[in-house]
Amino acid sequence: MANERPTGLKANKGIELLTWATPNGWKASIMLEELKEAYGKEYTWQPINIGQNIQKEPWFTKLGPNGRIPVIVDHDQGGFAVQEGLAILAYLTRHYDPDHKFSFIDPFDVSRAEQWMAWQHGGLGPMQGQANHFNRYAKEIIPYAMQRYTGETERLVGILDNQLKDKDYLVGNKYSIADIASFGWVNVLRASGVDLDAFPNLKSWWERILARPAVQKGLAVPSPSSISNEAYLQRMAEDQEYAQKERELKQKIEEAKEQYGYKYSSP
Amino acid sequence: MANERPTGLKANKGIELLTWATPNGWKASIMLEELKEAYGKEYTWQPINIGQNIQKEPWFTKLGPNGRIPVIVDHDQGGFAVQEGLAILAYLTRHYDPDHKFSFIDPFDVSRAEQWMAWQHGGLGPMQGQANHFNRYAKEIIPYAMQRYTGETERLVGILDNQLKDKDYLVGNKYSIADIASFGWVNVLRASGVDLDAFPNLKSWWERILARPAVQKGLAVPSPSSISNEAYLQRMAEDQEYAQKERELKQKIEEAKEQYGYKYSSP
Repeated sequence: MANERPTGLKANKGIELLTWATPNGWKASIMLEELKEAYGKEYTWQPINIGQNIQKEPWFTKLGPNGRIPVIVDHDQGGFAVQEGLAILAYLTRHYDPDHKFSFIDPFDVSRAEQWMAWQHGGLGPMQGQANHFNRYAKEIIPYAMQRYTGETERLVGILDNQLKDKDYLVGNKYSIADIASFGWVNVLRASGVDLDAFPNLKSWWERILARPAVQKGLAVPSPSSISNEAYLQRMAEDQEYAQKERELKQKIEEAKEQYGYKYSSP
Repeated sequence: MANERPTGLKANKGIELLTWATPNGWKASIMLEELKEAYGKEYTWQPINIGQNIQKEPWFTKLGPNGRIPVIVDHDQGGFAVQEGLAILAYLTRHYDPDHKFSFIDPFDVSRAEQWMAWQHGGLGPMQGQANHFNRYAKEIIPYAMQRYTGETERLVGILDNQLKDKDYLVGNKYSIADIASFGWVNVLRASGVDLDAFPNLKSWWERILARPAVQKGLAVPSPSSISNEAYLQRMAEDQEYAQKERELKQKIEEAKEQYGYKYSSP
């Protein structure tokens, strides 16, 4: 249940995932659903409502000292805990993907995947996160910051789009942890004020990954998001008041871009 | 020479580093100096003046599509290029640290190092970078953003300080890539508006790493920085005009914190 309030770990075997329905949380839940489908690897999860700051409680920060979701605990390895999405994807494939279905053996492909995961972890994730903050959550309207971060998000997804030209997946012609790392952020791109339709290679890649059954299951842990691209478009179509507010937000972002002379150009 | 303007690669064997004197650049130059001292591994470097946007030129983005320093090219591996600091540290130790002097064999220590590298790459680096932007480089004074990012930088270094309680290094009781990843950002902490003296475990760790000869050499590639903690304190002591402007900046940051009711509390 997504509305329970965990106070500690609940499992004693397998992987236990502490998460919330965010682009970073999805890295872990999608990976675990893929391992479940591919190998029958079981996992349990608990919802960590970040609006209630459960991730700041002592029992949680003992496992994930940064106080952020997702965190996994491997009960079959003495309760070893892993924080940070990139490290979770690497840990899970290192230990539980023996056939390298989602990871690589060739050291150059290993590095290529690591590079795109790091690129997401240090660029797309934090910058799109700041765009969401200044476009939606900050109590002040700050055009400079709206332009800065929406523009940087566009630059970054432009690089991903360019990388996916004539390619189905980022590394080694197969779906892997490199794709899983960025997928979640692209899955909320529309709500971040960036037009997914303007990046056709990226859009095809997003649709290709979204069609995977394990991805659908991972996106439902702990509960579906209201700002995924699909949910966003649906709400725009059905809820006139919401659509009007969103159009006003888009207008503010456009005005901020004009104010600072910003215009997207492809890489 | 730091003032030349590269137009392409110049070496044909060993590792070639494309870099600039920034916390991210230092990850690569320090690692390469350590490998040089430990194993005699030679490398060459070229200065990429980011103020002149050399990292956006086509010859560079062919190697590092994100258009950011540092990038390394391994001429002994068919010119394989690696971008992103985390991926560079992992690549260099995977290929050129056979005795695991700076990396790990035990898979749990491997993960611990990966977690702290990812924590730096997705947290300390991008957030301290935003603090620097809004405190120093943005053309508008935006108290909300100054408070947001200086406060988040303090929260993050507080976590590092806490992690270093009773420990000399982050992982496995030895100096490693986990330490190298965060060292560079801590090395400019004072100029980012955060008081290093308020974090005694972190300060000792910073001094311990700074004392290493290879670190001193790495910090000089391509040329010493004017905002390292030492250079900053020296300039504050010697240049009264600079010191006055810095005190005014600190005052603005303090006012921003008060305006938004922010107060640092240790984790």
